[in-house]
Amino acid sequence: MAHASTRPDREPLRFLPHINSPEDLKTYRLEDLQHIADECRSYLIDVISQNGGHFASSLGVVELTVALHYVYSTPRDHIIWDVGHQAYIHKMLTGRRDLMQTNRQFNGIAGFPKIPESPHDAFGTGHASTSISAAAGMAAARDLAGTDEKVIAVIGDGSMTGGMAFEAMNHLGDLKSDVLVILNDNQMAISPSTGGLKDYLVNISLNKTYNKLRAFIWNTVSGINNDIGEAAKTAIHKIEDGIKASLTPGAFFEALGFRYFGPIDGHNTEQLVMALREMHELPHPKLLHVITKKGKGFKPAEQNQSAWHAHSGGFDRITGKSLKQAAPKPAPPKYQKVFGDALNDIAAIEKNVVGITAAMPSGTSLDLFQQHHPERFYDVGIAEQHAVTFAAGMAAKGYKPVCAIYSTFLQRAYDQLIHDVALQNQHVVFAIDRAGLVGEDGPTHHGAFDLSFLHPVPNMVIMAPKDEQELRNMLYTSLVHHDGPAAIRYPRGSATGMKLDTAFTRLDIGQGETLRNGSDIALLALGTMVHKALETAKELEQAGISALVANMRFLKPLDTDLLEGIAAAHKKIVVIEENSMIGGLGSAISDYLHAHRHDNELLKIGLPDKFITHGSMKELYAMLGLERHALGTTISQFCNGTATETYGNSQSTIRTERLA
Amino acid sequence: MAHASTRPDREPLRFLPHINSPEDLKTYRLEDLQHIADECRSYLIDVISQNGGHFASSLGVVELTVALHYVYSTPRDHIIWDVGHQAYIHKMLTGRRDLMQTNRQFNGIAGFPKIPESPHDAFGTGHASTSISAAAGMAAARDLAGTDEKVIAVIGDGSMTGGMAFEAMNHLGDLKSDVLVILNDNQMAISPSTGGLKDYLVNISLNKTYNKLRAFIWNTVSGINNDIGEAAKTAIHKIEDGIKASLTPGAFFEALGFRYFGPIDGHNTEQLVMALREMHELPHPKLLHVITKKGKGFKPAEQNQSAWHAHSGGFDRITGKSLKQAAPKPAPPKYQKVFGDALNDIAAIEKNVVGITAAMPSGTSLDLFQQHHPERFYDVGIAEQHAVTFAAGMAAKGYKPVCAIYSTFLQRAYDQLIHDVALQNQHVVFAIDRAGLVGEDGPTHHGAFDLSFLHPVPNMVIMAPKDEQELRNMLYTSLVHHDGPAAIRYPRGSATGMKLDTAFTRLDIGQGETLRNGSDIALLALGTMVHKALETAKELEQAGISALVANMRFLKPLDTDLLEGIAAAHKKIVVIEENSMIGGLGSAISDYLHAHRHDNELLKIGLPDKFITHGSMKELYAMLGLERHALGTTISQFCNGTATETYGNSQSTIRTERLA
Repeated sequence: MAHASTRPDREPLRFLPHINSPEDLKTYRLEDLQHIADECRSYLIDVISQNGGHFASSLGVVELTVALHYVYSTPRDHIIWDVGHQAYIHKMLTGRRDLMQTNRQFNGIAGFPKIPESPHDAFGTGHASTSISAAAGMAAARDLAGTDEKVIAVIGDGSMTGGMAFEAMNHLGDLKSDVLVILNDNQMAISPSTGGLKDYLVNISLNKTYNKLRAFIWNTVSGINNDIGEAAKTAIHKIEDGIKASLTPGAFFEALGFRYFGPIDGHNTEQLVMALREMHELPHPKLLHVITKKGKGFKPAEQNQSAWHAHSGGFDRITGKSLKQAAPKPAPPKYQKVFGDALNDIAAIEKNVVGITAAMPSGTSLDLFQQHHPERFYDVGIAEQHAVTFAAGMAAKGYKPVCAIYSTFLQRAYDQLIHDVALQNQHVVFAIDRAGLVGEDGPTHHGAFDLSFLHPVPNMVIMAPKDEQELRNMLYTSLVHHDGPAAIRYPRGSATGMKLDTAFTRLDIGQGETLRNGSDIALLALGTMVHKALETAKELEQAGISALVANMRFLKPLDTDLLEGIAAAHKKIVVIEENSMIGGLGSAISDYLHAHRHDNELLKIGLPDKFITHGSMKELYAMLGLERHALGTTISQFCNGTATETYGNSQSTIRTERLA
Repeated sequence: MAHASTRPDREPLRFLPHINSPEDLKTYRLEDLQHIADECRSYLIDVISQNGGHFASSLGVVELTVALHYVYSTPRDHIIWDVGHQAYIHKMLTGRRDLMQTNRQFNGIAGFPKIPESPHDAFGTGHASTSISAAAGMAAARDLAGTDEKVIAVIGDGSMTGGMAFEAMNHLGDLKSDVLVILNDNQMAISPSTGGLKDYLVNISLNKTYNKLRAFIWNTVSGINNDIGEAAKTAIHKIEDGIKASLTPGAFFEALGFRYFGPIDGHNTEQLVMALREMHELPHPKLLHVITKKGKGFKPAEQNQSAWHAHSGGFDRITGKSLKQAAPKPAPPKYQKVFGDALNDIAAIEKNVVGITAAMPSGTSLDLFQQHHPERFYDVGIAEQHAVTFAAGMAAKGYKPVCAIYSTFLQRAYDQLIHDVALQNQHVVFAIDRAGLVGEDGPTHHGAFDLSFLHPVPNMVIMAPKDEQELRNMLYTSLVHHDGPAAIRYPRGSATGMKLDTAFTRLDIGQGETLRNGSDIALLALGTMVHKALETAKELEQAGISALVANMRFLKPLDTDLLEGIAAAHKKIVVIEENSMIGGLGSAISDYLHAHRHDNELLKIGLPDKFITHGSMKELYAMLGLERHALGTTISQFCNGTATETYGNSQSTIRTERLA
């Protein structure tokens, strides 16, 4: 690790300005690579300290990325970055250095690899554990075509716990295709990684197995006879070598049909290049185990990797201290924090409550529960499928599991939610964080579909709180006054900041509420959109339109009594939700109105039927017409009979060209 | 394997009639167990030869099941049967022997373990690879409660390739909970299992690693000095033992934190009982590797395991020959066969087409493609997640992958379908077999949700053929005249038997067709329901109602031109689909009508919002009112303004009691 150093503050960059492609990089000598790596790291710290972004992961793979682009030739060769938030150096070395300032900004480059962004981005990533599958597919394609480009997957030890990484390795062992998997072992995912495999990898680094066996051999020999002769000693040395060869520390990977190499120092460019060159022409699947340090070269991040996983920028590039002059004004708590606190409060009275996360204790604030109830807390690793069925198993034994999973990652456990929870009517509560738009993380992370994919699942109760008080009460109601599957979806970011009542109130399952009366039109909303509906109603009032606002609370069961009353009194109904317009609350109400022969006019407002780019929430809402003013305009037009078409499922949304 | 024998034909059962619970079994001596196992096998062959059912799997675990119930005490201890079609002997020994005649029949016992059926069924199964997760959850619950019941997961080598099995083992290695995983290694899933791990397991059985190392040691020693002295020889023997201990053949499982035992003969009751007893009090996760033979004790099944995976019954209990007197009348080809043939025909002209299956080559008829194009065929094992991203990787390199997956199993790859295929707009074609009801396999296997969960996914084209000719043309159109994600859903079982045109016709994406004109009402249908709609239209004609019938063909993009014409000419519209009524074609049309301010009356007919039991297709259709006569009645009533409510998303469908 001695090779890494940080460029003295603000020293002019010597190499980096001349490197605009991997070909430029290849013009330098091997001895220069460490300096280039240092400059990459320094540049990255500059960018992130100003603009923010995922941070610690990219710092950990600076040398690895430089070495990969020195040895391999993208775009002919393909490097697939698992999860992809460690690909900043890759972006810098493939012609996007000057664009790093726009990273994760609206109309800027994405925080993840993205095929349309560069031919050097071989495959788009964002969710964990996909890289080996994609690499296997590309290698199979290459083998069919009879060409010889190389395919490399770079995957962290955290992502390695995801089942599909195992599925892909197992299949590659069968295909025997030339794929290089680089296991970037920093002993961390976002939170410390979990599982038996982690211990195994630590053991490998320490080479315990081999050392144990070696000690055994020499103890045995010397115990029997101190003078066994030179020939025997030589023999035993040879045996030792043979054992070393047989006992490659990567027996786990060898079992799957991989050749294992390593572990090597991931911060030594020279050693990395030599290893990559040595393996370059080896056919068949192989794995290079590289030890790296997350946050490498930036002390604050090295010391607190979780806290520096991603950062919003505005800090000193040496100390990490915030540069913001004014004391930050007290922000309302995040929804996730409200969830964590509420779960603690409920757990205090309900002893059977347990909390389950798939490697996201801090992201979901389940770490708050962990602090108070470590014995009832389970981090299963990046393994959403297992998390959900594990929860079902605990529920089958009478416990009340809360699975805290981001909306977009719950897609990973859809079958388990249907087959193991809903079909068996198990009392598992899904705390679905990051539902709706998530901002800068973009299309891989928006929670745009959960209402739609949960809706058809029998036995599910599906709800979304309008504010943090309701989140508390929904969690309480679903854990204490309900028996069966339930889902609560709530957004990323700050709650309203309202004063919280610490007492819990039981909600009636399937009952909404009217928040505001109005005679001209009815606005029905769910979750985040309830407050927007209220704001919009005020806008409309100024335009002379009197709008009722109802908080539906539940997508399922739908409050049909409330709906009947509204349908009878309001010819025009608007539904507003932060979910795909296909299959969510709007569709449920549309279906209900038809089923009951109501002839109301209905306007659905929600996310359009396309993947939504990255940017600030404000920019995305503006783009989609989901802020107060645009909503007011759209709804006024609907009132006056001139609304534009919002139904997204039209032929025009099917694009045969690639993503632009 | 010498211990297994088959009871002479029709010899009276001596033990089995007295065994109505695991407690009864425990009253017998260890020496009697093999006889009891023989009787179980014989009884099973009797039952299946008469009534059909999953077969070969249960025959393979007769001894294992007897041994498990001899050593463990369900329902206090929990045995979880992965997939569950091997649990027939378990059902026989836990009080359901006499009910085996009703296996998989409407109102009879299920073909899979099911919590409501018996307290001995600790967890419901059906899909692969869930058992270790559920076992881990139950063990965690037990550890929290501080009790000492045992938890056992029985999983086949095929299911072991599913990623969630790995996720669960990895987590158990961290939990260090007392769970016994029994790896039932018959070197087969439904089709021969795939992957590096398979070779590894074979190697274990043959103990290659150890043998290789042993040979190396002796060769080395004798190469150097033939006379190294007795002391050195002794030392080397000891080293050998030490190596043997270090080199447990299960290093793969040990890496995950399991203690590995085996492999042992899975058809020797005595050896099984001894091993189970020995491991009974060992804490922590442990794995017992058991070698079994699928179809054991029934020669035809031993010889052709795939063909005898499941059987419809009516065969000789010794020879396996069909007992049906009349020559079977020539049945129409199955949809899956039409798919397989069509893919071959297309592959002949389109060289970039590749076929991918997740361990279902025969179930999907992709084996027909495999026969003609082995180099373009990929069986990835039971690993739907990997299958889909693998396909995306091949598509990214210009190939045209067809992923043939059952509807219910595609739920496993929902995230990959969104994140790796649709978001990246990759040209992957999903051939979704077993869409709609599947009959005797029941709720774990019905394909009730695919239209709903695919519908909100941007970029997807979603279609369903009305007959086998249209299936051919849809596959052709999506592979040859389309670029982007597409899904074709078609049912289990026989197609119409129509004469096929071998030439392909390009369909216009998003275009349906009017099959029959009518003035009183319009019936809009998709897939299997198109023919039912035509039949129903004839029924309605006799009742004096003139019905238009349209084959919508595409759920997405919806044929809005066709819909406009129909909506203008028909006040009353009926939508019929074999999918959940929530989020499918009916919802799409409901949304469209509202979005375009059409005041048509709409009746949706489809699968209700509940899990649907097992039984023959005829019985299930009758139960759900989906056969011609019931449809005619429902639609007549709608025509006359007296239709009953069919909208399924009402409060009454949320059940707080357990499944009945």
